[in-house]
Amino acid sequence: MALSDVKGVQRNDAGIAAAVGILRQRFGDRFQTGHSMREQHAHTTTYIPTQMPDGVVFPQTVAEVQEIVRACAEHRVPVVAFGTGTSLEGQVNAPGGGISLDMSRMNRVLSVNSEDLDVTIEPGLTREELNAYLRDTGLFFPIDPGANASLGGMAATRASGTNAVRYGTMRDNVLALTAVMADGRAITTAKRAKKSAAGYDLTRLLVGSEGTLGIITSLTLKLYGIPQAISGGVCPFPSVEAACQAVIATIQMGIPVARIELVNALQMRAINLHSRLDYPESPCLFVEFHGSDAGVAEQAEMFGEIASEHGGGPFLWTSVAEERAKLWKARHEAYWASFVLRPGAKGLSTDVCVPISRLAECIAETETDIAEMGLVAPIVGHVGDGNFHVLVLMDTSNPAEIAQAEKFVARLNMRAIGMDGTCTGEHGIGQGKMGFLRHELGEAVDVMRAIKRALDPDNILNPGKVLPD
Amino acid sequence: MALSDVKGVQRNDAGIAAAVGILRQRFGDRFQTGHSMREQHAHTTTYIPTQMPDGVVFPQTVAEVQEIVRACAEHRVPVVAFGTGTSLEGQVNAPGGGISLDMSRMNRVLSVNSEDLDVTIEPGLTREELNAYLRDTGLFFPIDPGANASLGGMAATRASGTNAVRYGTMRDNVLALTAVMADGRAITTAKRAKKSAAGYDLTRLLVGSEGTLGIITSLTLKLYGIPQAISGGVCPFPSVEAACQAVIATIQMGIPVARIELVNALQMRAINLHSRLDYPESPCLFVEFHGSDAGVAEQAEMFGEIASEHGGGPFLWTSVAEERAKLWKARHEAYWASFVLRPGAKGLSTDVCVPISRLAECIAETETDIAEMGLVAPIVGHVGDGNFHVLVLMDTSNPAEIAQAEKFVARLNMRAIGMDGTCTGEHGIGQGKMGFLRHELGEAVDVMRAIKRALDPDNILNPGKVLPD
Repeated sequence: MALSDVKGVQRNDAGIAAAVGILRQRFGDRFQTGHSMREQHAHTTTYIPTQMPDGVVFPQTVAEVQEIVRACAEHRVPVVAFGTGTSLEGQVNAPGGGISLDMSRMNRVLSVNSEDLDVTIEPGLTREELNAYLRDTGLFFPIDPGANASLGGMAATRASGTNAVRYGTMRDNVLALTAVMADGRAITTAKRAKKSAAGYDLTRLLVGSEGTLGIITSLTLKLYGIPQAISGGVCPFPSVEAACQAVIATIQMGIPVARIELVNALQMRAINLHSRLDYPESPCLFVEFHGSDAGVAEQAEMFGEIASEHGGGPFLWTSVAEERAKLWKARHEAYWASFVLRPGAKGLSTDVCVPISRLAECIAETETDIAEMGLVAPIVGHVGDGNFHVLVLMDTSNPAEIAQAEKFVARLNMRAIGMDGTCTGEHGIGQGKMGFLRHELGEAVDVMRAIKRALDPDNILNPGKVLPD
Repeated sequence: MALSDVKGVQRNDAGIAAAVGILRQRFGDRFQTGHSMREQHAHTTTYIPTQMPDGVVFPQTVAEVQEIVRACAEHRVPVVAFGTGTSLEGQVNAPGGGISLDMSRMNRVLSVNSEDLDVTIEPGLTREELNAYLRDTGLFFPIDPGANASLGGMAATRASGTNAVRYGTMRDNVLALTAVMADGRAITTAKRAKKSAAGYDLTRLLVGSEGTLGIITSLTLKLYGIPQAISGGVCPFPSVEAACQAVIATIQMGIPVARIELVNALQMRAINLHSRLDYPESPCLFVEFHGSDAGVAEQAEMFGEIASEHGGGPFLWTSVAEERAKLWKARHEAYWASFVLRPGAKGLSTDVCVPISRLAECIAETETDIAEMGLVAPIVGHVGDGNFHVLVLMDTSNPAEIAQAEKFVARLNMRAIGMDGTCTGEHGIGQGKMGFLRHELGEAVDVMRAIKRALDPDNILNPGKVLPD
């Protein structure tokens, strides 16, 4: 399936009209059908065409979510859960219309269990809000996908980001959740014990299911102590290959790196242009270590030695917060800096993930592809996990450019899959990558489909996503 | 359901006869129906009554597993996957008869990817065999449930053990797997990328499904660098409460403890009696740290300070391997030492897991229950995870004792569930804990059941396990 050729889902106009009537009656001002509100709830940060829902509802309780889902189930109307709309593969589009379930008003912290290092929250809470709330406890929630996304959305898309190399992804950090299923039943997938061998792992089944199996209504998340000390810095390398070898050596040594980010030469150039800096315009690794004062110093020194053995350096690092922020400034600004390479362009952000042994090769082939196709497309990567992003800068009003970008993304996906990797390490399948899931996982897709049918026989939960027809 | 009243599954005698005929014809010597062979494959390390399969088959390839499953599917005959038979809740019993699928001849290492820190193996390989194979690579697989179990069985039961506090459980350490489903289809749940957001997490769905959703035919597992240094030691505490508070403080400080094991006073007495040692007969924590030389020394010292703040000590620790083994000897011998408390008795080993904030209370109430019920039952715990075991020493020929033990286990399960914990942290549900799953997870059990029906409509994969009727 081409990215720009997202299939529709057959509309059930009569059912939608009935559900809209019921929800309007029941929720009053908390149910909206204005054009801009609907458009905003289908707006995705990709160029996948907007497909608006017919109405947007703002539930405040689990019981309300159940009511909404039951009304939609009765009339076979799609329900699309919406967090902050920062997903990148069309996850919140409504190809068959229906109801957008905006979870933003379910954003309370329900309980903090500091001795257990966990917190239970409602899904509309964002990660920054959670960390602001936790500030005085000495604890934090580490998963950082970049955007200030809602935690429900992060769970639904199995988000990760810069420090997954140390703390894992949402898969690893959701201890339990509650969800409303397609028939309106509310379930709890697990208790709060740190581990359990009791029954099927429904927590992990719902995490990453992108709203197609259930609507997440609360999450119990793992927390971590704010590290006593953080060191971090930046290190240039002569090539992506050398940088990747240094990453492999660092991880093999068991150095508990908290973040290890690759920025390629083109992206470094964009950063220099954008921020009037003078970093070397060669591939750089941005690294960060969390631990005790002595620990983070030791780790930074060990990393510096490894970098130097692989032809990298100088490795500039510090444990002083302000200086560290300065060293990392380039990485933090990478996304916005990119646009200096092609003013006025829009960006298509895509991601793949491969075994780290294949990462250098995958990035090198991708850079060659970018050059040969004449694209402007900088690369950044969460390289500790073998995950990288390409931001294709394009004129979205030009069909030829769209076709070219689609071709590039398709080749990238197939390259990653061919290297025993995945077409998405963290953005999810949504609509944009549905055409690649079967290439990646073959008949396992039929098993996914059987589960979807068993749990949502009328296909009302976020239809037209994840599973190709 | 009482532990000793495990329900049967209706036998399909005609189907079984047909399948036995087919498998005998096809597999010759690799299909066995002798009584002792069948008994051995239903023998569990609990006192749950043995329920023998009708035959035992030893496949050597995925294609053979497919053939066997297809033959059984055609005739609606149960298929019970068998690793080493060390599961504790009746997982390998065959309540409806059928075929035991002994995976022991599928025990090859398929590939070691040392740069990616992963290995792909067949399910019959045991964890000790894997670590022996890996010895020269500098890598190891950390999960250690005690028994030298097969890795397929460990995945199927979501096993963990002493160092899960640092390395996670099988849930966290299976990167991908292949499985033969109830219809004979072979699927691959994921590629080898370290993380993925591509579709439903079938890996985690199959891990912990106890052979009821698919037969695992290969596993890709995460590996870790053998730590440069290990320090470890033992520290007595005035009470379980004090020991638990020290554990909480250690984890909150972010000290990356690799193992932290509680042994209660009765268990310490058993160890002293058994091994003629003179440990203090009070609750002890056995701890171990993995890292750099400087790191493990720093961590041990920090732990010593925390222990002392909670009234514990002296904390005897060392980084010298032989001395560490001596200090840990008591913990390693705990299981066998227990029997000195009641010579001739058999042991019922059960486990629960609670949020760590409730652990001291849960153990205290359990110790009171043990005393009040007049049981002999020492306790050890993987307390970093809030997980503990009780070994009830009993005369299994005495129905009154069995009834008493069942009552105790039921009360323990309900106590753990009431404290927001689980009736099993690592042993699984099997037959023994089926009666508690609904108490723990309510309607989520119906969702599990819907998944089971969708993937195994004729209920041939390990029927009568995990999901209560």
